[in-house]
Formats: sequence, structure tokens, C-alpha cells
Amino acid sequence: MTADGGGELALIRLIRDAAYRQHPDLRTGIGDDCAVLAVEPGELLLATTDLLVEDVHFRRRYADPADIGWKSLAVNLSDVASMGGRPRWALVALACPESTDREEIRAFYIAALGLADEHGVAIVGGDTSLSRSGWTVNVSLLGTATRPILRSTASVGDVVVVTGSLGRSRAGLALLEGQEPLPRVEASARAEAIAAHLRPRPRVKEGQWLGATARVTSMIDLSDGLATDLGHVVRESGVGARVHLDRIPVADSTGTIAAALGEDARIWATSGGEDYELLLTCPPAAVPGLADGLRRATGTTLTPVGEIVSGSPGVQFVDARGEPVEVTPGFEHFVTGRSRD
Amino acid sequence: MTADGGGELALIRLIRDAAYRQHPDLRTGIGDDCAVLAVEPGELLLATTDLLVEDVHFRRRYADPADIGWKSLAVNLSDVASMGGRPRWALVALACPESTDREEIRAFYIAALGLADEHGVAIVGGDTSLSRSGWTVNVSLLGTATRPILRSTASVGDVVVVTGSLGRSRAGLALLEGQEPLPRVEASARAEAIAAHLRPRPRVKEGQWLGATARVTSMIDLSDGLATDLGHVVRESGVGARVHLDRIPVADSTGTIAAALGEDARIWATSGGEDYELLLTCPPAAVPGLADGLRRATGTTLTPVGEIVSGSPGVQFVDARGEPVEVTPGFEHFVTGRSRD
Repeated sequence: MTADGGGELALIRLIRDAAYRQHPDLRTGIGDDCAVLAVEPGELLLATTDLLVEDVHFRRRYADPADIGWKSLAVNLSDVASMGGRPRWALVALACPESTDREEIRAFYIAALGLADEHGVAIVGGDTSLSRSGWTVNVSLLGTATRPILRSTASVGDVVVVTGSLGRSRAGLALLEGQEPLPRVEASARAEAIAAHLRPRPRVKEGQWLGATARVTSMIDLSDGLATDLGHVVRESGVGARVHLDRIPVADSTGTIAAALGEDARIWATSGGEDYELLLTCPPAAVPGLADGLRRATGTTLTPVGEIVSGSPGVQFVDARGEPVEVTPGFEHFVTGRSRD
Repeated sequence: MTADGGGELALIRLIRDAAYRQHPDLRTGIGDDCAVLAVEPGELLLATTDLLVEDVHFRRRYADPADIGWKSLAVNLSDVASMGGRPRWALVALACPESTDREEIRAFYIAALGLADEHGVAIVGGDTSLSRSGWTVNVSLLGTATRPILRSTASVGDVVVVTGSLGRSRAGLALLEGQEPLPRVEASARAEAIAAHLRPRPRVKEGQWLGATARVTSMIDLSDGLATDLGHVVRESGVGARVHLDRIPVADSTGTIAAALGEDARIWATSGGEDYELLLTCPPAAVPGLADGLRRATGTTLTPVGEIVSGSPGVQFVDARGEPVEVTPGFEHFVTGRSRD
């Protein structure tokens, strides 16, 4: 960090002022050893954390400090959303190189604060450090819920449903990581895919609405890809799942980009990761009401893509004729050695 | 990370099993998108986070994975201790290079789990990632307290008191960072100082005991050094402080090491940082009872080192005759460009 007397204190004041604006449940925020927070009686506490590392989760070549600030909070918001919870308080820790400009650090925090404000979240603490290499960010997020929706409670016979469309973030990543010459793709499709990758919009309102219906039997967010994340649901629930490849919602822009790059949009949709859509299970009879209600409440679509089946925990993908199709699994840290990029 | 099918899942199981052993308040731990936690009515929630970065906060040359796991939790335990809180739940995020051996990662988590167990803390979540450079660890810790002790509530006339002795961690760092030939220092003094630096013992029991007395007016932990941390207390409380250099408790081993290296142990004690002792303020009449009670309850000493005075927020150090003495301030990230090493 550039040595510039008052840098950290000025940042602390910026965040402290923003945090106190609208959070009466924040008893003591930035500026003491711990934040002091009041949880309402009857509320359970949700806690999650995510670490984002330069050249593993993003590249500075295309992700600016504001993108990093946004996304590091967004991925945690998505975890709280997937439990049907209300996100409340964030701890934001940043390490960056000595050469980092003060304005870059401000841009990082202002983007995180903007997204936090949008969801009623206070940034109540954090840490700042030098890094001897690139940027590293850790966000821990606390939320509350009266009845959290788990991933371990899917039942045989349930339908598997997803919000929005899948594969868009992977399409954006393909464009960002791509070599010249760039593929000939409409500017709007390009912008949509890149925004999905750099500035994902976590389904917070959707998660809360779905969680409140009492019809959703399990829920998870799609961070690692449908194949991997539904794999978590079936393993934790002790069931199996069958997914119809042709039913997976893929945005036109994603299809266009995949075609221009000679890639398969369905693989992006099942294994690309980082869509931060929600995957949920519910009884078949509940689907029309949930889809209609969610669209009215939030504008977001729900699409049934498969069903929970008995048998050994695993996800089987099938084509339109019901024939099994092999799909590349998403990444898992430490197992495949692959990572989000 | 070495690609070795099942690495992350095996770690998750290790931590999950340990976490569930003794924590009925943990409704859902590792293995879902968020941990689900129950806070008792009447309890306030405490939240803190710390980021530890290789070659900024530690060097792999002398800090092994178990040291890193221990210390990354210890520094957060100290923050909860400084509010008089009971530490409860930790989120542990680790990024390390692809070449890292699986056993090193296990050693990291087992050391963190050991210290967590000692303090009744459950590791309820986390994240693991590749790093393109060194080790980076982030721990976020949640605690509870009915009446948290703040740093902003010191009163003019209060005495400034510290637990234990100061400067020992800095002495350990001097030995660890030192060049050959090593100074001639007794093995026991060397071991004590190095342990203080690599495996600090946060004053958790002490913080809870002190917080429960209702005599402590403010408290903070000594992470950045007495000069800097007491500076936080006086700035947040809108008071000043005077510290008597000759009253600061310095262990014999620290004095011996400083002498052998031609350094000033008093500077280490005021500005060395990372002692993770507690600094508190209380009315003068409360000191004997607190010192006696704390020693009986925990074996830890309390030493009065100064007093809270009126006037502009600042810390003045004085010698035995009451003459002002200039003391180098501790580090502050982003302001001086210095860091804990």
C-alpha cells in the first residue's frame, strides 16, 4: 500500500459511516476489536465465508478493483440466499500489493458497500494487509433465518428446479480469457455475459421468497456448476437425481457466444460454474405456483430440469429421448486441481 | 494442491466430525452453504476477522503449517477475549500453492482444531483455494457476550493495566528473523520467546473473567503494541493516557534476548506488537481486587502501567522521574507501510 498518512483510518471512517446509516441492530461496528450485533429472538444465525485469490478466481487484466469488491460480496450473498436467509453483516478482509493505489482500494470498498446497501447488509468489520503477490479478498457474511433451507433434505419424487439461466458466467469468462481476434458476437450479448461473470447478481430476494413458501424441500446456489452442486444435494440427502439436458435454461446470448467459439453451451450450463442461480427441489404439484409466484414477486423465472430419484447418490444427465449423456463435472478445489478459471 | 481424489472431502469430514463433538448450538455446520447457529436470548453476537499473509505476517522458513493454523485462530480469539466475550464459532479459509502437500494442510487444520477445542470453539465453515504465491489464511470468529467491554469507554482517572508481560513476541521474532551467528541466549529463554511469537496464547479466560467483574471500564488486546493499541483506546474514548515506561512488565527472557542483540526491551514492550495480552482500564480502587482475583482464577498477573488523563487523545510515555520519553509507535497497515514483520 502506498504510505500516505491516514489511509487506513480514512477507509475505516468511510465504511463506518456507511454501516451506521441504516442498521439499528449494529450495536458497535468498525473501530472496536469485534463488531457487536443483535440477533432477534427466534432467528437462527447463518455464517459463510469465501476467499477470492488473484489468478485463481479472477485476473487483474480484466477485473478492476470494483469488480473484485462486488463479486467477493456477491458470492457470499448467494450462499445466504441459498438457505432462504436474510443477509445482515459482512466482514471484508483485503490484502493487496504495496504498489496498489489508494483510489483502487476505495473503488474496491465502494463497490462492496454499494452491493451491501442494495441488500441491507452492513460491513461491520474487516482487515487490511499488504500482500507480497496479488490481490486476495476474504468476505465472511452473517445472515439470519427462522427456517433455513438445507441442501440435505431433498426427497425422492421431488422436481429439480433452477432460477434464471445457466452458463452465462462461463460464456463471459470465455470472452474475457479469449485470445485475439475476438469472436464476432453482438455487443449486447458480450456485455451480458461479461457482466454475469464479473458482477453476478445473487438471488437474495428470490431465496427469501422461496424459503418463505414452505414448499421448497432443499436449496443450494450454483457456484460450481449444476453437475457438482446438484451432486452435493443428492449426496447430503442420500438420493439420486436425473437431469434432462434439453430442459436446462440457456440464454440466447450464451448460445451465440458458445457457437462463435465452437464450444458447447450445454457443457457451460452444467459445468461452467459461477452462475449464482439457485437450485431447489419441491414436490411436482408445487412447481406451477412457485414459478408463477416468484415471477410476480421478483421477475425471475423458475425452470424444472429434472427429478430426484431413489438409488445411489449421483446425478445422471439424459437427452431428449431419456438416453444417458456423459457431462464433464464442475471443479472442486483440492480434488481435481482445477479452479474457477 | 496435490490432486489426490477426495482431498477436500476428507478434510471436510475431519472438521465436521470435530465440530459436532461438543456443540449442541451448532445446528448445521460444514457441508451446507452456511453454518446455522443458535444464539441464546440475551446474548449479543461478536464478530471479528483477521487475514494472515505469508511474508507479511509470517515466513514459511520458520512457521510450519501447524504454527500458521494455531496463530490464525489465536489472533481472532484474542479479539473476542478483549471484549470479554465467549468465543463460539470459527470460519477458516486457506489458500496455498499447488505444490502444498496434503499432510501440511492436515497439520494446519489439526492445529487450528486443537486450539479451537481448548476454547470450546467449533470450526463451522471455511473455504479452500489454490494460491499462485504463498499461504494466505483468513479466520473469522464469532463469539457471544451479554455485556461486551468496548475500547471507547475509558474514563479520566482510570488506571491503565496490562496482563502478563510485553515484548516477548518481538523478542521471538528477532531470534527467528536474526542472522547467523545466533546470539548466546539460554535455550529456555529462546524457546519461550519463539513460542510467544509463533503460538501466542490468547487471554480468553482472562477476558471473560475481567469482563464479568463490572469493574473494567474498557479493554483491548495488544496486537499492534501498547503505544498503538492504547492510542486506539484514548482516541475512541476522547481522553489521553500517561504510561510509566519503568512499570511495563517485561519478562527476564525478553530482557536477556534484547541485551544479547543490542536492542532495547522497552521499545519491544511498547511497540513490538503481537503480544496478545489484554490492556484494560478500571478505577484505581479496583486494581488490587482485580489483580488478586485474576491471579487466583487464571494464574495470570495484572500490572498497572499508567493512567487515563484529560486532554487531547494521545499516549505520553514518561520515565521514572515523570519526564516525557519518545517511543517509536507500532505499525499500522496502509499508514506507515510497515507490517507485523
